[in-house]
Amino acid sequence: MVQQERALRTRRSLIRAAAEVFAEEGFVPASITTISRRAGVSNGALHFHFENKRALARAVEDEAAQTLRRITKGVLDAEGGALQALVDGTYGLMSGLADDIVVRAGFGLGGETSRGADSELRRYWQQWVEDMLRRAEKEGRLAQGVSCESAAPALVAATVGFEVLGGKDPQWLSEQRIRSFWDLLLPRLAEPDTGISPGSGGSPESDAPARG
Amino acid sequence: MVQQERALRTRRSLIRAAAEVFAEEGFVPASITTISRRAGVSNGALHFHFENKRALARAVEDEAAQTLRRITKGVLDAEGGALQALVDGTYGLMSGLADDIVVRAGFGLGGETSRGADSELRRYWQQWVEDMLRRAEKEGRLAQGVSCESAAPALVAATVGFEVLGGKDPQWLSEQRIRSFWDLLLPRLAEPDTGISPGSGGSPESDAPARG
Repeated sequence: MVQQERALRTRRSLIRAAAEVFAEEGFVPASITTISRRAGVSNGALHFHFENKRALARAVEDEAAQTLRRITKGVLDAEGGALQALVDGTYGLMSGLADDIVVRAGFGLGGETSRGADSELRRYWQQWVEDMLRRAEKEGRLAQGVSCESAAPALVAATVGFEVLGGKDPQWLSEQRIRSFWDLLLPRLAEPDTGISPGSGGSPESDAPARG
Repeated sequence: MVQQERALRTRRSLIRAAAEVFAEEGFVPASITTISRRAGVSNGALHFHFENKRALARAVEDEAAQTLRRITKGVLDAEGGALQALVDGTYGLMSGLADDIVVRAGFGLGGETSRGADSELRRYWQQWVEDMLRRAEKEGRLAQGVSCESAAPALVAATVGFEVLGGKDPQWLSEQRIRSFWDLLLPRLAEPDTGISPGSGGSPESDAPARG
């Protein structure tokens, strides 16, 4: 039992160390030895948990995907329906990216040309944004003339842009920056008087956002 | 003279081949031999022009920067002032990314973690967007309550998002996608009756965009 706990803890620190090294150096230059050293374990211990660097990257992406699912599920019951959930979810994603190196590295890995793989995290995010817009449209909360189809590209592109720019400069992930985005876009997106707040919903664990 | 022309042509095909290989494989895995073969020259000829892979990447980015400057300068005299220039410039950037592998690879190189370097292309683009918004504000063409400071993050993030997503799926660079972005954003951004068109300005060489 104690041994199993220790194994779990080692696995977790390896994922974290790998995320740090991938985010700093990129996937291809990152070395297994740097990662195991950073985690404070031997190369042998690393290989007990992960067959190779690719498996480690996979584990980083899986953990990031779990966190992303938690973030998007945690905002679903917002007053204000799907459109408020969308607003709150972007704050959740950006604070996830700012605070959690595994989330940041997970998105970064998906964006790397050299890994070839398509970014499942970005695909999940894109589908979630489209899903929220579709629901908001059904709820009658989108402004006249705005549809899921017409609004989704701008929202997906902007949030991916914040994510990518935030990988090099954390200022891009700040509440203030996201707030300025919603201040600009929400009046165009939301049916007037639906009471959707452009303010920060913060992390999924936090209370419902204060209405602005 | 003939020799000089041939040298120039070789240099140009090396830059193009490097751009293709960087865009396909990423900077770190890309090999000098793959690039010289793609350009149809020997490794020796490659090294006559470029000291190493880093110098090749630099040349790709420099050529992309020249094209980007041409695009942003080519839209400056639009009727509708700086805000129309901003709209037209985004179409120009996206068609540059779609049609010119050197532009696409140049932006891609700037985004790669493993190269460490900051993306000068993105920085130039960001400054240009801010500059256009500042001018539009002075020209009185921004809607009430909208300023350069409040609008710039959303615009920079969205265009970077289109660029990044377009690197994996060219659909993101299509006129239709950019049009849906401006259809959504422009009514919020522009002072009413300024006659700014959300339509495609196309390449900087094309005529002024049709008014929508």
